[in-house]
Amino acid sequence: MRIGIIGVTGYTGSELLRILLHHPGVHVTYVTSHSFAGKPLAEVHPHFQGIIDLTCQKFEVEEARRETDLVFCALPHGESMEAVAQLYRAGLKVIDLSADYRLHRAGDYRTWYQREHTVPELLGQAVYGLPEFNREKIRRASLVANPGCYPTSVLLALAPLTRQEGLVDWNTLVVDAKSGASGAGRVPSPVLHYPECTENFRAYRVAVHQHAGEMEQELGMLLGKTAAFTFVPHLVPMVRGILSTTYLTLATEMQEEDIREVYRNYYSEAFFVRVLPQGLFPETRNVYGSNFCDLGLHRDRRTGRLILISALDNLVKGAAGQAVQNMNLMLGIEETSGLKFVPLRP
Amino acid sequence: MRIGIIGVTGYTGSELLRILLHHPGVHVTYVTSHSFAGKPLAEVHPHFQGIIDLTCQKFEVEEARRETDLVFCALPHGESMEAVAQLYRAGLKVIDLSADYRLHRAGDYRTWYQREHTVPELLGQAVYGLPEFNREKIRRASLVANPGCYPTSVLLALAPLTRQEGLVDWNTLVVDAKSGASGAGRVPSPVLHYPECTENFRAYRVAVHQHAGEMEQELGMLLGKTAAFTFVPHLVPMVRGILSTTYLTLATEMQEEDIREVYRNYYSEAFFVRVLPQGLFPETRNVYGSNFCDLGLHRDRRTGRLILISALDNLVKGAAGQAVQNMNLMLGIEETSGLKFVPLRP
Amino acid sequence: MRIGIIGVTGYTGSELLRILLHHPGVHVTYVTSHSFAGKPLAEVHPHFQGIIDLTCQKFEVEEARRETDLVFCALPHGESMEAVAQLYRAGLKVIDLSADYRLHRAGDYRTWYQREHTVPELLGQAVYGLPEFNREKIRRASLVANPGCYPTSVLLALAPLTRQEGLVDWNTLVVDAKSGASGAGRVPSPVLHYPECTENFRAYRVAVHQHAGEMEQELGMLLGKTAAFTFVPHLVPMVRGILSTTYLTLATEMQEEDIREVYRNYYSEAFFVRVLPQGLFPETRNVYGSNFCDLGLHRDRRTGRLILISALDNLVKGAAGQAVQNMNLMLGIEETSGLKFVPLRP
Amino acid sequence: MRIGIIGVTGYTGSELLRILLHHPGVHVTYVTSHSFAGKPLAEVHPHFQGIIDLTCQKFEVEEARRETDLVFCALPHGESMEAVAQLYRAGLKVIDLSADYRLHRAGDYRTWYQREHTVPELLGQAVYGLPEFNREKIRRASLVANPGCYPTSVLLALAPLTRQEGLVDWNTLVVDAKSGASGAGRVPSPVLHYPECTENFRAYRVAVHQHAGEMEQELGMLLGKTAAFTFVPHLVPMVRGILSTTYLTLATEMQEEDIREVYRNYYSEAFFVRVLPQGLFPETRNVYGSNFCDLGLHRDRRTGRLILISALDNLVKGAAGQAVQNMNLMLGIEETSGLKFVPLRP
Repeated sequence: MRIGIIGVTGYTGSELLRILLHHPGVHVTYVTSHSFAGKPLAEVHPHFQGIIDLTCQKFEVEEARRETDLVFCALPHGESMEAVAQLYRAGLKVIDLSADYRLHRAGDYRTWYQREHTVPELLGQAVYGLPEFNREKIRRASLVANPGCYPTSVLLALAPLTRQEGLVDWNTLVVDAKSGASGAGRVPSPVLHYPECTENFRAYRVAVHQHAGEMEQELGMLLGKTAAFTFVPHLVPMVRGILSTTYLTLATEMQEEDIREVYRNYYSEAFFVRVLPQGLFPETRNVYGSNFCDLGLHRDRRTGRLILISALDNLVKGAAGQAVQNMNLMLGIEETSGLKFVPLRP
Repeated sequence: MRIGIIGVTGYTGSELLRILLHHPGVHVTYVTSHSFAGKPLAEVHPHFQGIIDLTCQKFEVEEARRETDLVFCALPHGESMEAVAQLYRAGLKVIDLSADYRLHRAGDYRTWYQREHTVPELLGQAVYGLPEFNREKIRRASLVANPGCYPTSVLLALAPLTRQEGLVDWNTLVVDAKSGASGAGRVPSPVLHYPECTENFRAYRVAVHQHAGEMEQELGMLLGKTAAFTFVPHLVPMVRGILSTTYLTLATEMQEEDIREVYRNYYSEAFFVRVLPQGLFPETRNVYGSNFCDLGLHRDRRTGRLILISALDNLVKGAAGQAVQNMNLMLGIEETSGLKFVPLRP
Repeated sequence: MRIGIIGVTGYTGSELLRILLHHPGVHVTYVTSHSFAGKPLAEVHPHFQGIIDLTCQKFEVEEARRETDLVFCALPHGESMEAVAQLYRAGLKVIDLSADYRLHRAGDYRTWYQREHTVPELLGQAVYGLPEFNREKIRRASLVANPGCYPTSVLLALAPLTRQEGLVDWNTLVVDAKSGASGAGRVPSPVLHYPECTENFRAYRVAVHQHAGEMEQELGMLLGKTAAFTFVPHLVPMVRGILSTTYLTLATEMQEEDIREVYRNYYSEAFFVRVLPQGLFPETRNVYGSNFCDLGLHRDRRTGRLILISALDNLVKGAAGQAVQNMNLMLGIEETSGLKFVPLRP
Repeated sequence: MRIGIIGVTGYTGSELLRILLHHPGVHVTYVTSHSFAGKPLAEVHPHFQGIIDLTCQKFEVEEARRETDLVFCALPHGESMEAVAQLYRAGLKVIDLSADYRLHRAGDYRTWYQREHTVPELLGQAVYGLPEFNREKIRRASLVANPGCYPTSVLLALAPLTRQEGLVDWNTLVVDAKSGASGAGRVPSPVLHYPECTENFRAYRVAVHQHAGEMEQELGMLLGKTAAFTFVPHLVPMVRGILSTTYLTLATEMQEEDIREVYRNYYSEAFFVRVLPQGLFPETRNVYGSNFCDLGLHRDRRTGRLILISALDNLVKGAAGQAVQNMNLMLGIEETSGLKFVPLRP
């Protein structure tokens, strides 16, 4: 199968390329970049020198249609919606890594992204690409909206609890999330200037981060009712990794091991979700460069709260890796194909 | 005034020395180290070379009595209790930086530290050294238990809320705290081995960290009733800094600015607590190397929660700086004397 | 082919495992650990959880002989020599990642490692495993001494210059090398304690580092005469990567592009050595997690010096990756098989 | 004395402010910023909140004349020359932290900075502000050109060798320097974007860095003859610190301890230069946040080379601290006044 990457210049673009080059069943034939059109890829991403001999193209939908069977769209939020629509209408399978097709309602998009969606009629076509919930829908989809990095970590932590009524009190949900710097992309900014970012720790977009909308939508669908919770993201002085700590008051006397069993059952078929044994908790380094999401849990007897900790690599399971997992499903390839990277540690 | 430091080898020991060398009103005359007794201080802490000409002594209470007026005890937890008792009984003013005299009840000490307190009769003499609450008691104290780094950050964030009944629902309290690596001290360990610690983020002692006991004790005293909450600390790949994110459901319709006003009033006399204006939140780098604790707050309208964020340098306001602030009070020196370090940024 | 790893607990052990798990032509059947014998591998290296189901064995040469066709020995220097000898004598192909078989003369070993070699009679059997020079010898070898990380970076930078008499004045050779912290291994120590190592830069073993012996031996062989030079290694606050900056006075008027051409020719068949174009210089991040060694060069017209800059990942091309490259040669597999990892950036 | 800072927005500006606020004998009365004129300083540098109540002004020479006795000019290279000329002509004492007045000849400025100097007639008035060489000239100067960070580290390492003819062969001089990221200033750029800079090590401006001109000029003056050498700077993933490793072939049989004695004598009056004992070498962390420059030396018997290692904090002894040291001399204040900061470690 021939694969295209629209917007190869950024971090998700280069991570897609890294993963696809290791994939046995596909071939990257077409990569585009607005600012580097006409230049060799190794000029944009020098670590690819000697590995790949592609030239960045200017994006043209006709060219994409001719050269590829499926495209990943790794453009910034807002820029993606039109390109995706063109590609989709040209009959290509599309996986969009931006947020533009994650929300089902144009009004929600306006609320969380402060702009109008210009192709609202397509929102209903997009499948939310979290394979661990939506495997079957993704298999049949032509347009997949690849989830955000925070939502992937949080939804994987919460999903098993939604299966069974009365496990937790959903009104008590608090998510305290921490991310490495690569999640903010490749464009330099004061906050990510090395001397400002290293040896520093801060919260940002406190309780107003746009990923809340996506999480509440999907959690609401899993629960069958609306869900609102507090979400505070923080910036960690590291490149890769998200670790989310989630707090919920238990509505049951269930013991920790029984809750863990619920998780193990839920994820028994999910190669990339690792439920850790009692007393062990995730570390971002254990998933570095890989497509795993590690889950740990603890029942706090003193307060009756359940504490869930989930860790993933924001560029892999939180972006490009999950996108390739979706691609595998859409193309009828084995779901884990090309994705069984061993985490890089140290 | 002549000052001693018992246990100068560790990070709090050297940080005390750094601060006291800049202090206009005191003179360090006596420093001890078990492992470096007889050696020049600059051999233990090479950054002091050319600055100070002290030799590490073996700790002897008689010598301490002769050479000093006040001593800081910077020994590890468990080792401190006997030394402190001897110094106190020798008539010296003592500030203990370990946890050994922070809990008022020997039973609580056993619960949280899994060992017996050998001098329980002295627990009642120790004043909890958080000057922003206990200023007057500290002025009259001979034995001060210097607070832990996490408790300082959390108690300063919570104290103003305890003044007024009905502001928040205390049963909903969740504290998600993040600390740099220096809080764990100077002894090498696998978790703090550079290749394991950098580019990594993890929780530890999930809901079982010993600082919970100290926080619940002091919060209980401020509230006039027992308080139990969930406390999860995390390790950030940086040297200095603690940032605590605290979540509480509001029991009032009070607006954010009015809550901020409660904080401003509470801390109007507290030079080292900076309440940030609306929209600004603390960063650990803004307090790096200084005795400040920065506080930010946000009322989450969607969920009715109050989010408090507090940041301090764990070795300064979280340890040695606060200890010197206590010393100033005990010796009748201006509280901020020698402590107005500008934070080091970048 | 069945592969064993003796000493799987350390960083080179786990990196070998990571690489071999991605290798299409071999199968790891036997891993040993002194301290973790009997325990599942994922207990030692938690990032392997869910990926591999091996149990650490106690090393026994008979077992190794039965279970494997080739073994990697990743034991510490000094501990390796006996194990290697046993394995070799049992008829196994052996690749030793320690320094124990790199020096050809027992006297040199004594000089640089301050201990006696206990199996000096085997030194003559060992082939120095730098495939870019010794490809044919390695193909026929049963015992390969895998080069050190610094020597690999320096020898690859110097080798092309040794081909042609009179290019440089070898008496002027100075090597200033910089390494990340993982090169020192997994055992915690004060120097690698996170708060001591991060935000710090230092030289160490100034002009007395043991890798000098290995470099001088191999350079001497390439040159056909003895070579002595100044070598100063430094510790960089990062996990992976070595960058060596090498200075030599030119003995010719050759232009920079012509010198580069010498390099391009020398490495025309070497997939893993990338000679960078004029004006570009290596960065460790461009080889992160990969088996590449990047080379840049600059002719300083003002002083007549040649400046060579080489970068590699010390755990891959500087250790485990190069070892697998040697394995491929020894087993008659395509040299690059299982080793074409794209560098991980960012 | 009333002090001004022209260009307070950058890192040297804020570092000057930090140091001057701790200084007992001066008072900062005037700070300017082009982009933040009219705004409170704490909006530009939030870590100063609650500490200082200055407002950024637009630079006007008349205002500077009225409000200050001495000004620091911390503008970017190229922008500084005109402002300095105006201030100097208005009768103020000026310390310029840019490179604009460091070179004595306009032609050299053109060579190294690729632009014309617009006030060449003033170049002769400027004294090169390295107090350890030029103490007396600085005392009488009205215009001081504050040295670059690399030149300070290298010239302090070399100066003692220039005192005595025949100690070294100056033609063999090679300087391999390494700097933290703050030396490049506060403006975000791709190279200093956190995910590009951390876990990365690279050389830059290989043998063409503009500081070479300044070093060769001053070294030439100390030697009484022209000096050209190879200078390669590298970027270390840390915020503060420069470590320079300097290589020179000895022209004498002098023993290491005798050479060290030359250094000790040369710097016997220099509080901020610490010559380390045999076997100890500088680390950047030992000078962090302080005005010290640490020097270590090693005689490599195998090759007859002398290896000099020098470390300083590029923002302090490499910029703002040295500027304040110059200020003290110019104002007749004790040279070390306000500058005896203990290094911050860890």
